[in-house]
Order: sequence, then C-alpha cells, then structure tokens
Amino acid sequence: MSADLYAKLANRLGPKGFATDAADLAPYLREWRGRYEGSTPFLALPASTEEVADVVRFCADAGAAITTQGGNTGLVGGQIPAGEVLLSLKRMNRIRSLDAANDSLIAEAGAVLTAVQQAAADSDRLFPLSLASEGSATIGGLISTNAGGVHVLRYGMMRDLVLGIEAVLPDGRTYAGLRGLRKDNTGYDLKQLFIGAEGTLGVVTAACLKLFARPRAHEVALVATPSPAAALDLLQHMKAATGAVAAFEIMNRLSVDLVVRNVAERRDPLPGAPYMVLIEFEGMSDLGLRESVVEALDAALEAGEAEHVLLAENTAQARDFWRIREDISAGHRPEGAQVNHDVSVPVSKTPAFLAEADAAMDKICAGARIVAFGHMGDGNFHYTVMQPEGMAPAQFPGAELTQRVNEIAVAMGGSISAEHGIGVARVGDLARFKDPESIALMRTMKAALDPKRVMNPRALIPD
Amino acid sequence: MSADLYAKLANRLGPKGFATDAADLAPYLREWRGRYEGSTPFLALPASTEEVADVVRFCADAGAAITTQGGNTGLVGGQIPAGEVLLSLKRMNRIRSLDAANDSLIAEAGAVLTAVQQAAADSDRLFPLSLASEGSATIGGLISTNAGGVHVLRYGMMRDLVLGIEAVLPDGRTYAGLRGLRKDNTGYDLKQLFIGAEGTLGVVTAACLKLFARPRAHEVALVATPSPAAALDLLQHMKAATGAVAAFEIMNRLSVDLVVRNVAERRDPLPGAPYMVLIEFEGMSDLGLRESVVEALDAALEAGEAEHVLLAENTAQARDFWRIREDISAGHRPEGAQVNHDVSVPVSKTPAFLAEADAAMDKICAGARIVAFGHMGDGNFHYTVMQPEGMAPAQFPGAELTQRVNEIAVAMGGSISAEHGIGVARVGDLARFKDPESIALMRTMKAALDPKRVMNPRALIPD
Repeated sequence: MSADLYAKLANRLGPKGFATDAADLAPYLREWRGRYEGSTPFLALPASTEEVADVVRFCADAGAAITTQGGNTGLVGGQIPAGEVLLSLKRMNRIRSLDAANDSLIAEAGAVLTAVQQAAADSDRLFPLSLASEGSATIGGLISTNAGGVHVLRYGMMRDLVLGIEAVLPDGRTYAGLRGLRKDNTGYDLKQLFIGAEGTLGVVTAACLKLFARPRAHEVALVATPSPAAALDLLQHMKAATGAVAAFEIMNRLSVDLVVRNVAERRDPLPGAPYMVLIEFEGMSDLGLRESVVEALDAALEAGEAEHVLLAENTAQARDFWRIREDISAGHRPEGAQVNHDVSVPVSKTPAFLAEADAAMDKICAGARIVAFGHMGDGNFHYTVMQPEGMAPAQFPGAELTQRVNEIAVAMGGSISAEHGIGVARVGDLARFKDPESIALMRTMKAALDPKRVMNPRALIPD
Repeated sequence: MSADLYAKLANRLGPKGFATDAADLAPYLREWRGRYEGSTPFLALPASTEEVADVVRFCADAGAAITTQGGNTGLVGGQIPAGEVLLSLKRMNRIRSLDAANDSLIAEAGAVLTAVQQAAADSDRLFPLSLASEGSATIGGLISTNAGGVHVLRYGMMRDLVLGIEAVLPDGRTYAGLRGLRKDNTGYDLKQLFIGAEGTLGVVTAACLKLFARPRAHEVALVATPSPAAALDLLQHMKAATGAVAAFEIMNRLSVDLVVRNVAERRDPLPGAPYMVLIEFEGMSDLGLRESVVEALDAALEAGEAEHVLLAENTAQARDFWRIREDISAGHRPEGAQVNHDVSVPVSKTPAFLAEADAAMDKICAGARIVAFGHMGDGNFHYTVMQPEGMAPAQFPGAELTQRVNEIAVAMGGSISAEHGIGVARVGDLARFKDPESIALMRTMKAALDPKRVMNPRALIPD
C-alpha cells in the first residue's frame, strides 16, 4: 500500500478509525474455526457512511482492493483479507430509527443481529431472522450473504426482510435507498444488487428492515418419523392443517446419537426414531393454536407420518428440544475427517436426495457416516459425510464425496450452496456447477458496477 | 424494417407465428382505455422459448428494437409499440408443470393469471396474486411490472412469488433460471434483473411460481372508521390480534358515494362513515378464526378505531363488500376531468399523506373532489383528484395537482408509482423525482445488459 494512500486514509479516519498493529489486527484476520488466516496492510474502521465512501473512493483511486468484514462469522472465507485493505463496519452499529406503525427499523451494517432482534422486541415487534451466529453476525454481513436460518419457512431469507438499503458503490458514490416502502415500482429494484452479492458490488452501510407483529403463542413438537418421505408428508400436512409452521427441521438418527455422545448433558428424547423432526408453530393468540396443533399431530400419527410425538409442555421443554437441533454441529465435529455440505433441492425432492446421496456416499466410501439435518421445510440440508470409525483420516476421500453430493443436488435442480454462500472456499465448485450463462451474467454485472475490481476481488467471481 | 429481417422472422416463425395485416394488429396496438395507439411493422407471435430467442437475436443483429406485450392490461403505455417490432407472448400460455409437494408451478409468460390461479386450486393450492385485470393479465407482464394487488399485505408482490425465471436476453442468449428452490446462495440473484424491469433487460418467457396451502376459512369485514389515523390503529390492532389479515383496503366517503351514484345496483352499506375499511382475514381452519376476528373487532369498537362493523355472514355478503371496493374505478370515471395517482408512503405516514394531500389539492383547485382508496396496509393509495362539479374540464389544473401529489409522497419517503410502473407515461415524472444515483445505476445496468437498446427502448429509461 502506498504511503500516500495510507496518509489519506489515516487522516480521514482519525486515530480511532484504523489499525495497523499486528495485535490489533489479529482477531480480524482469523476465521473463527481457524480455517482461514489473512493479512492486511490497513484495517479501516469507519464510523459513518461518509467515511466508508471516502475509504472506498481513496482505495479505488489508488487501485487498492478492499475486503469487507461484518461479524466475521462467515463459513466460506469471504471476510478474510489476503493483502487487501480490510474494511470493518463494526463501529457503525447503531439502530438509527424504528417506525413501529410501519413495522420497520433502520440499522447500520455493523449492528449485531441480536441487537436488532432486541430493538424489535422492545417495540413489541419481531425481527424473525434467527441463526446460530446471531450474537456476532452483523446486519451488513447477513444482507451481503442473504442469510437464512430456522425461520425461512415462514418469514423468508434476509432478502425478503429488507425494505431498503444504503450502500457505497465501488467508486465511492453512495446509493441512498434507505426507504421503508412495501411497494415501489419506479424502476429496477436496485437494493437487490447488494443482497447476497458478498460485498462484490458495493458495501452495505445500513438497511431498513421489515418487522412483524409479535406472535403470542408458540408450540414446539419433536416428532419421530419413519422416513424422509413420511417427513415430507408431515410437512405438507402441518402447513395445510395449521398455517402456523414457523420451523421444520429434520435430524437423522446419527446426528442425534452424536449429540448424545459428544455434548455434555444431552439425552435422546426419542430413542430409536429413524428420523426426528422438530416443528415450531406460532400464532398471534392462544385462541385455537394448541388445539389445531394437537388435532393435526393426532392425524399425523394416524396417517403413519409420525410414530411418536412429544409436544413441549412449557418453554423450558421447548428450549430442550431446540438444543438438540442446535448442538448437532458440535456433536459431529469431534468425529474425525469429514466434509460438510449446504445443499438445497426442491422440497418435493428431499426424500430422493437423501436416498440417493446416502447410497452414493457408501458406494464411494463404505461405512462412511452421514449426519443429515437441517431446514427440510426449505429443501435445505446440512449434509456431512464423516470417515468410517477407525479409518485413517488421510484415507478419507472427501473431495470425491463432495463432488458427488453436489452432482446429485444439481441433477435434481438443486443448489450447491443454499445459505452459506460462495466466498473463496466454493469458487471452484461454482465454476464447475453453475451454468455458463449465469456466470457470464454475473461477470457482466461485476464489470459494469466494479470495473476496477475494487470490492472483494477474490470472492464469488474472481478474474 | 428491412426485407431481410422480415424474411428471417417470417421464415423462422411460420404463418401462425406472425402478423402484419392492420386488422390482425389492431387489438395489439390499442391500449384498453384508448390512451395509447401504436404502430408496428411486424407482430411476432412465437410459440416457444427458442423462437423468442431467435426473434430477439435477429432483431438485435439487424439493429431493430422490440416492444414486448403480455395481456395488454398495463396502465402506463409500456406495452404499445411505436414502430418497433412487437413481440407478443400470448401463444406461450402453457402451465408446463406443477409440483404440489414443492408448492410451485411453472407457467409460460403468456399464461393468464386466472389460469394460474385455477391450476393451483386444482391441486388444492393457492396462487395468491389477485388484481382487477386477472382475467387478461399474463404472467410475463405481471413479472415484468412486479404486479401487486389486494393480497400484497399477506403474500407480497409478484417479486415475492417468483422462485425462478427463464428469460431471453437482449442479445438472444437464454437465461435458464427456472429453478424451484427456496434457498440458493450461489451468486447474484439474477432473476431479480427481470422482475419489475418492464421488459427493458430481456423477455421473460416462463417462471416458476410459489404456491401456498389453501386457506380454509375466510372472514370479510366492512368497518366504518372516523379517520385515517383510526384506520392505521385498526390495521396494527388487527394484524397483532389475529395474524390473519390478508387485505386491508381503505375507501374515503366520496369513493363510495360515486359507486352508488354511477354503478347500477350498488348501495352504501355504511352511510355516513367518513372512511370505510374492507378487511379480509384468512386462516387454515375454522378453528378460532371467527372467534378471534370478532374479539378483535369488538376491541376495535371499544377503542374507537371502528364506529360500525359489518362482518359478512356468508360468501355472498363477502362478495358484495368486495364489489364496492372493486367498483370504485368505475364509479369515478364518469366524473369529468381527473388525474390518477398510484403513490405509496411508509404505512405509518398514511394519515399524514391524506391530510396533507387533501389540503394541498383544495388549495390549488378549490372544490377539487378526491377519491382516495386502495391498499392502506401496504401504504399504497390510488389517489384521484377530480374537477369540481361544474368546472369546465379545460380549466382543471391536472398537471399541477399531479406534481404536488408526487412532491408530497416523495417528501415522506414515498414512491410516485407504487404498483403500476413507469412505462412511457411516467418517464418524465421518474426523471423529476428519482434520485440521480439511482437513475445512473439503472443506466449502468441497461447499458451493460442491453448496450444496443433492443428491448423496450422507450420505456422506463429512455436515452
């Protein structure tokens, strides 16, 4: 980095607004699981949109590339710099305003998800996005990666929760689209450019987010189901009968066994169930919710979609049910060599996907152990293949297994990255599995909006 | 148009696939209200995506521009050619497939909305988009204009109902994004380029649309409310108390009076009510819906949000309530010179908008009569200002009134076109009211994707 650029940035940002010492930089340069270690000549910590705009313009003018970072919770390495200027939005963490009667709030990019959830709750509203990293993940990162989570079935992805965006473009101009409108058909929906773009078309600095009326009634059921096909019938049935399904999470046998084995104080509530489904229902009032849930679950038992049903009797029990689901990642992490996947298929294809993928894994690697769990209601599985017990980790054919999982998903019209994105980790897979027309269109957009390739140049669509 | 292009197109499309006779062209060249009359040297009527692709490529190669037309129901003239080749998708009207367990169907661009609604109903599903022109409007047009309607409050705009798109790009390539996935984070969400773009970035040829479980229970209430502020309180209250509000439509006094005056066999169900609100509630089962609606409406009466409530006792009465709302346009059309607007503001600003706009209209044109109605739940008013009774139509200062309505909406963070789009009618307004950065970004995208300006060159962002 040139001395001139350094001086311009340091002068603009002031002593609190940047860092270059190794000790200060360290937490920003390491991905939380330790899979990526990066480097940067300069960490910019702007406190306002105007400062972000100047950082970007100075860098663009100097031909210096930028990597943007939110809460550093990403799983695909897109947030870790490799020599670029690092732009952290963490100081821009205000909730700028909340408009209860419009069911919306405006948050800066560095606001942590739990802070946004809390601000909504304080006004008797719900911000429904919910995921494991919510205590660290920031709004800017969640928008840039179009985050999902456990309530997508009812409320959609982050894309569906954004009314307006403020973003700094790759040349330093500001797109001031922080509107809180439900309807606006005055041209291209420009905010879409920045949602799920992984920071490659600009820096999100703030967003106007949708809020919802706060549900007053919740029911959580844990259901033993004989097969994925039965789980799919159960899903359709519960949606049609209650209209209240907020989450529908499947867990295969092994995923629960490994929670019990590797996580302290967890027990198996439905021993022997081939598959377990966690269903969360929500309603605006107690009037009728539990009755209709009980009625629907009884019918599911009769139809053979469910073999056993546990309906939480109170909040503590509901939390216990959720904990099993939440601990699955911790449960299988200690089990040796493994490859993780985040695939989606049409919801109707979920049983076929599991059948085909499970068989294919065993064919490539006999005895491979499979943890399949996740957001079945969205057609999205977190599908992990682990080495057979006793195999030497180096023998584990991870790359081959991953290739096959992706092939099976794509052949069913699926996606190789349902919610975690591409970052730098999946760039090769994207080139292998995305159709050439789409890649070409993405390149056209990148070239049009960021011709100098200033923004996150190694992520998503590298040169 | 060159003889060479004519020969290529005619040869590719065959005798059924095009028309050039004035009599055949006539219905395509006239906007249904008679506000636009167009001309074209060639009407292309392709029957497949491949034919569309060839039409576009031949035109692009020859430097001939194209105007695309769906059901010819648009209100802003974008579908009427002025010398361009006219591309009608009406022959591509198949429902290609329906995947009930994925809650999705694939329809071609020329499929009429009611046909899609019916196909969904035949599989016990709901396609929720609903608007006045649903018997003629086509899926391609509805996507290209990001149509809204009466159920946006619960189900969103057309943008929210599209899972995947197939489109022909301005150079004749095909974007084959007809996926039915709920989650796919493998790069830019390219389908967004074509939604609400009014055909300027490509031709939508088919789409994969979201379906929903079919609600089993409906309640429709007509509520007399003292003011827009009370109506806003009522909206919040009903959403929070029932979680079942599917439509929330406001009608001011005059809008109902003119229905009674000008539409046969309509009577006023709530004489004297300053404002009337039609609320539709829906639920998956009868269990609790009516009880919670009655309880909520009783509370609204007590809180003064409502002065009278009529809750439909049966489907026929519910239809009667809806008819008043649906006849408002017919009610005020015979009332002389008038200007129509389709504005939105944040929902919280709806009372302020009506107060300010009503006062401003009277100030510019004393005695101007105002019909204000529409989708209050989305912050969207159809706001019509009519000449005072007895004024000579030529005296009516329509342009000045429109300018002021737009100014008031925009000053509140609103939109000058909430659902009807820009087309050719609103191009001047767009230039006046949209911020320069957004216009510049739109131009950047247009130039990147359609550098020869083949697609709908006079609409949205003309040169």
